[in-house]
Amino acid sequence: MKKHHLRIPGPTEVPEQVLRAMQAPMINHRGEEFTSLFKKVSEEIKEVFQTKNDVLVFPSAGTGAMEAAIANLFSPGDLIVSFSCGVFGDRFADIAEAFGARVERIKVEWGRPVTYEIVRERISKDTKKEIKGVLFTHNETSTGVLNDIKSLREAVGDHPALVIVDAISSLGAVELNTDEWQIDVVVAGSQKALMIPPGLGLVSVSERAWKAVEDSKMPKYYWNFKNAKKSLEKGETPYTPAVSLVYALEESLKQIFDEGLENIIMRHKLLAKALREGLKNLGFRLFAQDSWASPTVTAVDISDFQGKINFSKALKNRFNITVAGGQEKLKGKIIRIGHVGYVDELDIINVLSAIEMILADEELFGKGVKAAEKVFNEGVEV
Amino acid sequence: MKKHHLRIPGPTEVPEQVLRAMQAPMINHRGEEFTSLFKKVSEEIKEVFQTKNDVLVFPSAGTGAMEAAIANLFSPGDLIVSFSCGVFGDRFADIAEAFGARVERIKVEWGRPVTYEIVRERISKDTKKEIKGVLFTHNETSTGVLNDIKSLREAVGDHPALVIVDAISSLGAVELNTDEWQIDVVVAGSQKALMIPPGLGLVSVSERAWKAVEDSKMPKYYWNFKNAKKSLEKGETPYTPAVSLVYALEESLKQIFDEGLENIIMRHKLLAKALREGLKNLGFRLFAQDSWASPTVTAVDISDFQGKINFSKALKNRFNITVAGGQEKLKGKIIRIGHVGYVDELDIINVLSAIEMILADEELFGKGVKAAEKVFNEGVEV
Repeated sequence: MKKHHLRIPGPTEVPEQVLRAMQAPMINHRGEEFTSLFKKVSEEIKEVFQTKNDVLVFPSAGTGAMEAAIANLFSPGDLIVSFSCGVFGDRFADIAEAFGARVERIKVEWGRPVTYEIVRERISKDTKKEIKGVLFTHNETSTGVLNDIKSLREAVGDHPALVIVDAISSLGAVELNTDEWQIDVVVAGSQKALMIPPGLGLVSVSERAWKAVEDSKMPKYYWNFKNAKKSLEKGETPYTPAVSLVYALEESLKQIFDEGLENIIMRHKLLAKALREGLKNLGFRLFAQDSWASPTVTAVDISDFQGKINFSKALKNRFNITVAGGQEKLKGKIIRIGHVGYVDELDIINVLSAIEMILADEELFGKGVKAAEKVFNEGVEV
Repeated sequence: MKKHHLRIPGPTEVPEQVLRAMQAPMINHRGEEFTSLFKKVSEEIKEVFQTKNDVLVFPSAGTGAMEAAIANLFSPGDLIVSFSCGVFGDRFADIAEAFGARVERIKVEWGRPVTYEIVRERISKDTKKEIKGVLFTHNETSTGVLNDIKSLREAVGDHPALVIVDAISSLGAVELNTDEWQIDVVVAGSQKALMIPPGLGLVSVSERAWKAVEDSKMPKYYWNFKNAKKSLEKGETPYTPAVSLVYALEESLKQIFDEGLENIIMRHKLLAKALREGLKNLGFRLFAQDSWASPTVTAVDISDFQGKINFSKALKNRFNITVAGGQEKLKGKIIRIGHVGYVDELDIINVLSAIEMILADEELFGKGVKAAEKVFNEGVEV
């Protein structure tokens, strides 16, 4: 008998209370019960986005919310600059390209972040203000790298390009001050720090972005922001909403506010730090440096163990801990340990202890756990 | 945010599948659906009891099943010898006394087991065969002591006294060969190794015990074995059964057979050993010696920490781990860590790591975990 531990960077574990909330009886999505529920969560979610602007909720994967942002803000032929440091940055560019934008891809070596300088250099060259939008990834899930969105936004400065941030794996776990930092569109998904099952895509839209929506000529129906906003004013959606997931969101928001967004952000920092110190103490190399390491997912270099230990398999078979492997060129070279959403200190201890037992070297027993305990006991100074 | 860890010796954590099974729609307890369900679980549970005899299921606490055994087997004035080494042994004697039996209490120092010699001495003195029943506790939850029932049964030998065993906190977790060892009545509850919520009391009744039932003159209605047996033959109960708990039992039995009773017994041994080695490595004294330590609950001497660390409180507040305190004269002197039922290796690691962090002594970080990892990696040779 082994309990279930989902340590991938999403979908994440869903708290029991949220699972229970989803068991509420199905209701009429055009009735008063749903409209008041939908108005409530659509209002409350703004706090998590740190915005006063509208947040639109779609029945979709996070990728759908990315597509929605592209389709509503731009027109075919628009120049969009994508700054990518991994799989999900590339995906955003792919979507823009699929919709006929002229996409310029600026790629950063995997394992490293996009920097102020890289963005500033490209922006400052655009004297004719041709760039209509820039695409950033807040937390690059494929490499465990956190981009400093505040600084990247500053690099865009007063250039009129819309600033669009994929915050799917960061929103609600990492500081992201949408309004204060002047982010036009933030894209998120339900299955990460929001601690609910996959199926909701969320998009915040700034006033500046709403102006761009007026001019956008990309084809859209499902993702149409204007229709979504018009419906939202009545507490409705243009087509059938994912009712049970909206119930789930109501409950998860309650839990988020109970703990407090700032506390949640500190918790994620602490969990990441403890895991990293533990892994380092066991001799592992981490794929991303501490200074830009993700608070929600840690990529661990396992290339030294190839042909010797299959960590993903061993963690699953022996301890029922599910971690993620590397994607594309990182396949087989890293494992990714998710610590986002419904994750606590003992979950980190679990992973480290399980890895110690898999390493099966008596010298290492307790060594990673020891380092993590030290971090936890020193508390939140991270 | 802290996940919920219930590490008391019962009620124990309930697996998600069992919780879900309890959400089945309510059914007519006199209908075909229930009768086939009840026949099925009443048959299957025999395997866990290691008996071919009837097992009766009551809507009750474990204590109810104890009372049922007394009320059905004896008559007022009968001499019953209670061998007790703790709170639950004493309780069995109290029940017998309340029903008018002549109870002789043989008490063993808390923290130690009842021995073959103690039983043999009393039995061999009873040349007139006056003793009608002997009461044993398999696993004394209050002190973390396992009595060697096989050996105690042998000490009774061919004396005609009925042998009644309280196996509430052992059944399904510790070896107990009811028929092979010739135990007349085994009493159990749902909320321990059966991994379901409290509310079912279970009693196995040997042929010899059924004969005693015929002669019993103690007052009974609710606990009436003969009525229960008559109903059981039709897949029914004499009064309303705890339907949802019967659904839960069906599912938990499935899980028990999936893992295998022998594997479960080995798991509990291993968990106990790892916890004990971990605690010893941290410098704790354990209340019961290794040779008679319970596989389901570990009593830890905390008297050295009085006024310094309140472990129960600290485990609860900082890690949401619930352990049990000492009972009666052991209040404040021990904590009891339950590891029965739905508990795995990482649960043990959790408790040790949490205790290490509470001790807050850098020298001890990882030290208990290290010892436990060693035990787990060495496997089931316990």
